Amino acid sequence: MPKLRKRLLLDEWVILAPERADRPRHLDLSLSSAKADTCPFCPENEAITPPTIASWRSEEFAEEPWAVRAIPNKFPALRVEEPVQPHSDRLYESIGGVGAHEVIIESPHHDTSWESLSATHLALILGAWRQRMTDLRGDRRLRCAMLFKNHGARAGATLAHVHSQLIALPLVPSGLQAELDGAREYFKDTGRCAICDMLKRERQSGERLVIENDAAVAVAPYASRTPFEIWILPRDHHGDFMAADPSLVAGIAELIEKLLPLWSEAIGPVAYNLVLHCLPFDLLDEPYYHWHLELLPRTGQVAGFEWSSNIYINPTPSEVAARHLRNLASRR
Amino acid sequence: MPKLRKRLLLDEWVILAPERADRPRHLDLSLSSAKADTCPFCPENEAITPPTIASWRSEEFAEEPWAVRAIPNKFPALRVEEPVQPHSDRLYESIGGVGAHEVIIESPHHDTSWESLSATHLALILGAWRQRMTDLRGDRRLRCAMLFKNHGARAGATLAHVHSQLIALPLVPSGLQAELDGAREYFKDTGRCAICDMLKRERQSGERLVIENDAAVAVAPYASRTPFEIWILPRDHHGDFMAADPSLVAGIAELIEKLLPLWSEAIGPVAYNLVLHCLPFDLLDEPYYHWHLELLPRTGQVAGFEWSSNIYINPTPSEVAARHLRNLASRR
Repeated sequence: MPKLRKRLLLDEWVILAPERADRPRHLDLSLSSAKADTCPFCPENEAITPPTIASWRSEEFAEEPWAVRAIPNKFPALRVEEPVQPHSDRLYESIGGVGAHEVIIESPHHDTSWESLSATHLALILGAWRQRMTDLRGDRRLRCAMLFKNHGARAGATLAHVHSQLIALPLVPSGLQAELDGAREYFKDTGRCAICDMLKRERQSGERLVIENDAAVAVAPYASRTPFEIWILPRDHHGDFMAADPSLVAGIAELIEKLLPLWSEAIGPVAYNLVLHCLPFDLLDEPYYHWHLELLPRTGQVAGFEWSSNIYINPTPSEVAARHLRNLASRR
Repeated sequence: MPKLRKRLLLDEWVILAPERADRPRHLDLSLSSAKADTCPFCPENEAITPPTIASWRSEEFAEEPWAVRAIPNKFPALRVEEPVQPHSDRLYESIGGVGAHEVIIESPHHDTSWESLSATHLALILGAWRQRMTDLRGDRRLRCAMLFKNHGARAGATLAHVHSQLIALPLVPSGLQAELDGAREYFKDTGRCAICDMLKRERQSGERLVIENDAAVAVAPYASRTPFEIWILPRDHHGDFMAADPSLVAGIAELIEKLLPLWSEAIGPVAYNLVLHCLPFDLLDEPYYHWHLELLPRTGQVAGFEWSSNIYINPTPSEVAARHLRNLASRR
């Protein structure tokens, strides 16, 4: 029975999920052992996963039973069935592990990755994210959903088949809350959205700009945590990812289709995390936040210093990374 | 020239250290290639490291030139020579990378780890930490020092030879600041130190207690981020690690000497981070904080969810981990 426990002295939480101890742990170290014939995410193996929540078809994969498929995580960190049951004294605090933990299987094909997928298919995946999030938003106990991809063992993936995950939470995690606080304060001081200002500044100076199209801009952020960290920022201001219309989703998918091969040419096949940042469900009308995607290559390890300080040490200035990616783009 | 850049929307910083790009990166993936004859931390190879800052001798290693040795990191994240040079507009902010980055080589012997070291030697290492921190405290531009150990490649170590690191910073990192804020608030509300209260509670209930002696207590914290996370808490209240007297240091070293073999018996040879948590230099007289050590085994990877939310998913309740370690201790 999962629970959330609050860390001493901090407004930060830990999910205690004893069921996850049963996960196939040997896959943690290397993904090469995950073969297609035993892969739970491959078509014809649907019976070994929990039942489908939703699936999406496409012309590109017309011969397959589905093109994208959402299922509950077999080893969920949180479950919709849990009672909230808050417990608190001044020292320790916990709540029930209410929430949702879903897997979005992003292709019927085992040996693929976002880099090999078409923009049309990437748009289908982003659309699936939107639909799953919109569905979960109906549960009033849930405050927000985190959508993320772990690509490669070093980025925390335990199965090789291309997939992303959604964790819906009964609270706003401190990582997101800190961003919201900063964005609200900036808006209060200036009357503007900080990410709109960042977009404007980066498009003007161009020094950290990678590529752009009518829908979005790919930028190496000023304070990149890792070499070649990239943010994908929709050009129009909106805090609510769920309100993104099909043309915006398609435009962002096209930008990702162009970006990933450049990225991979620059730093080689690398493990990475991709995270969607957007407003919590109960703050969707707030004007101060701007949804976006953050793409973090995992070229180093999170070590003792980073764990305790939240300070990351990055040897590659974002200007250098962006210039390199722009050069590669201009040669295509 | 290292710089600190502030992350957009956040009170969190990134150290931009281009010189660190020259580090021997092939060692990142596995430490097995680091052989004693080419190891920069072995005696007789002192010429290939920056010059010694301080060294300590001991009877145990009477035949060696030194038992513990502190040197500047060859690829420093921060340097004392840097000017502070703050630059700020409302959107982006940076300061010069002023600070110190030292390596404490913890034994002249290449093939050893804290688990094989005697309590006497561990006390010498903790004493070296204390002295290095006390020395750096003299520089008024530095606000605090983070002392940490990365053991094993998965925990971020790049060299196999047993060592720890000290990074002194011109600011208080958000990870520590959040703890200080929580501790100050608890003290304001209750008139007591939260860690003193935690100590009392854990010694009374015993359910998360691992081992203890007259100097300190080893506890699996209520909201453990990873399976078998352990905190080592000095029994007497003190926020200033530098004020620890030799008998306290010796008592803590004895506790660590007993704890590590139990820990290793329970979870096998595992990569880990050990971090010292203590007050910043300019707050040493504050009554609300209690210095301690946090020991984090690196059994999983930090993935997209953890990066973006600061929420960790842990399958092993701290009560289960503590009971297992107590059982192992009782059989010795």
